[in-house]
Amino acid sequence: MNLEERNKKALELHKQWQGKISTEPKMTLQSRDDLANAYTPGVAAACMEIAHDTARVYDYTLKANTIAVVSDGSAVLGLGNIGPEAAMPVMEGKAALFKAFGGVNAFPICLDTQDVDEIVHTVELLAPTFGGVNLEDISAPRCFEIEQKLKERLNIPVFHDDQHGTAVVVLCGIINALRITKKQAAACRVVINGAGAAGVAIAKLLVQFGISDVIVCDSRGIVSSKSARLTPIKQQLLTYTNKEDKQGSLSDALVGADIFIGVSVAGALSADMVKSMNSDAIIFAIANPVPEIYPDEALAAGARIAATGRSDFPNQINNVIAFPGIFKGALEAHVARITDEMLLKAAHALANLVSDQELCETFIMPDPFDKRCAEAVAQAVKECAIA
Amino acid sequence: MNLEERNKKALELHKQWQGKISTEPKMTLQSRDDLANAYTPGVAAACMEIAHDTARVYDYTLKANTIAVVSDGSAVLGLGNIGPEAAMPVMEGKAALFKAFGGVNAFPICLDTQDVDEIVHTVELLAPTFGGVNLEDISAPRCFEIEQKLKERLNIPVFHDDQHGTAVVVLCGIINALRITKKQAAACRVVINGAGAAGVAIAKLLVQFGISDVIVCDSRGIVSSKSARLTPIKQQLLTYTNKEDKQGSLSDALVGADIFIGVSVAGALSADMVKSMNSDAIIFAIANPVPEIYPDEALAAGARIAATGRSDFPNQINNVIAFPGIFKGALEAHVARITDEMLLKAAHALANLVSDQELCETFIMPDPFDKRCAEAVAQAVKECAIA
Repeated sequence: MNLEERNKKALELHKQWQGKISTEPKMTLQSRDDLANAYTPGVAAACMEIAHDTARVYDYTLKANTIAVVSDGSAVLGLGNIGPEAAMPVMEGKAALFKAFGGVNAFPICLDTQDVDEIVHTVELLAPTFGGVNLEDISAPRCFEIEQKLKERLNIPVFHDDQHGTAVVVLCGIINALRITKKQAAACRVVINGAGAAGVAIAKLLVQFGISDVIVCDSRGIVSSKSARLTPIKQQLLTYTNKEDKQGSLSDALVGADIFIGVSVAGALSADMVKSMNSDAIIFAIANPVPEIYPDEALAAGARIAATGRSDFPNQINNVIAFPGIFKGALEAHVARITDEMLLKAAHALANLVSDQELCETFIMPDPFDKRCAEAVAQAVKECAIA
Repeated sequence: MNLEERNKKALELHKQWQGKISTEPKMTLQSRDDLANAYTPGVAAACMEIAHDTARVYDYTLKANTIAVVSDGSAVLGLGNIGPEAAMPVMEGKAALFKAFGGVNAFPICLDTQDVDEIVHTVELLAPTFGGVNLEDISAPRCFEIEQKLKERLNIPVFHDDQHGTAVVVLCGIINALRITKKQAAACRVVINGAGAAGVAIAKLLVQFGISDVIVCDSRGIVSSKSARLTPIKQQLLTYTNKEDKQGSLSDALVGADIFIGVSVAGALSADMVKSMNSDAIIFAIANPVPEIYPDEALAAGARIAATGRSDFPNQINNVIAFPGIFKGALEAHVARITDEMLLKAAHALANLVSDQELCETFIMPDPFDKRCAEAVAQAVKECAIA
């Protein structure tokens, strides 16, 4: 199906669905007795238990297993700042995926403001209702500040999937790519192209994983202490990347590198750049829908492993293997925070789902429909919570 | 089942349910094709349609058929100001009733603030997501101000069920009580005991219905121009009630009255007061769980018709016959406001569900489980929208 056909089909279906999730009572409400249990007078018993001890809200309400999918519509897919109404189809879709893949109830919340403090305060006011908050499609650098402030103020888990979900899935792929190439993480040189939400989070998680040599490039080239317009986020990025403070272009950065991770724009990586990399080069070209380089080109230029964000090539980097399980685990273990350790363990757990027998250059990622994914990720999160 | 047994049973069930509603995808998500339609890349087509014309959010998203059930937990059932977490079981229950009785998707939103302007602003920011807002269990007089401000600022219907749902259902009962007693609305004297959310809304709707002589009492007696602590709400109330500016107690007000409507406290109406009323007196004693007077006492004192809020007596005043249909109609007709005319028509439509053959002193209200209720109310709302 080409993109035009796909759009037509999807639009028809969206019109038919009129919303991709529905809210459904968990009980029958067909008798006076049903009403007396679920509503008055019986409901008062649950209310009073919670009034006496707020923590019991987790025992008696949907806060136990329901998250908000929050967006301001400022950076929706690759479509840009299209506003809260136009972001709804994505947030509903995400909510549907949470339930279908992780058994986590989720409701879209698209906010009519793009002011950082107003978003933070609104989510604070909504917090009694929800067991967790998944931030989605909020533009950088606002997303960093919003996430940081919410983490400081809320006692429910807050997760920005565009950052951390992507980082977990990329790390899963890198772990398995290293299994194939037999390279050591500590000895690898990684170049990330893109210093937005995903690039920054990937860099951080790779360093915590044990890759010490990470360089991040933005549209102006290598992010270094000499870069023009060094935002606070990029200054912070430099505390754990580009330790030698190299300067230059993406091409300069890639000479001799082992791994390229593109979270940038179509066609950003040329065959010549791939050729300049170390042997057994690993290429993750995740720009969507058109990658930084197509896999066949990358492999022809000497790369050993190529991954993209697309489902029509091998090795799809798809966040759906991570985010449902992250919240499934966080809600089941009732954690207040999703920690970096949880993200690392989740990436390892996902990587381990690909057995030694299955593992090969064209099969480094678990299948998105592999039902073990959510369970493995949830288990990893829960183990960290207990430890 | 006594109240203690009921509480025990309800608490067990609430623990088992862990939330009374779930969010469910409307489609299967089991193949790459499913994902491509409901999520990327297909979802972008729906996003772009809405980005080009915001109104199309009603064609492609759950805004078409989903409302927020919003509370701050300040006046929950008869339990008082128990806060947003403890209010959750009620709002979830309400959301479940919206779906079960009206086919309307609803999600509870319990806010961590009791500041009027903060509530108003938060609901404004949430408005892109929802097709309507049902305010619930917010204390008077704050509820009046919140509703008023939201109606001015939002282009989606806002409805405070404690006010207007109650008023519609009471009026339905009054219409049918008048059918039995053959009294003319214009000639009736009505006394409402209780000047909170419900009392004020009932007074207003009865006047619009055509009852010109309405007196409202609060805990100090008749609300008149001489009352102590005349709030702005009560001042406004006096523009259409107590035209002769009577003063005195509830007992004074009731002498010769045709109809008593209690939205106040247990035992507020004595047998002697009923005896002082006009012949064929109509008593709606809606305080919950213990009414202003029990039906047998009221009837023994000479009343002809008695109604309460309880399901274990005849003539239950139960909002569930109104609110699901109100929003079903409002969403289907895509109205920006729920008007007084809609409320009047809805009350008439409900009253008409009781046929001449069925109508008698112990059957003035349609059964809450009568499936025609939501449809009749929705139809009434839609007819007003078209006219």
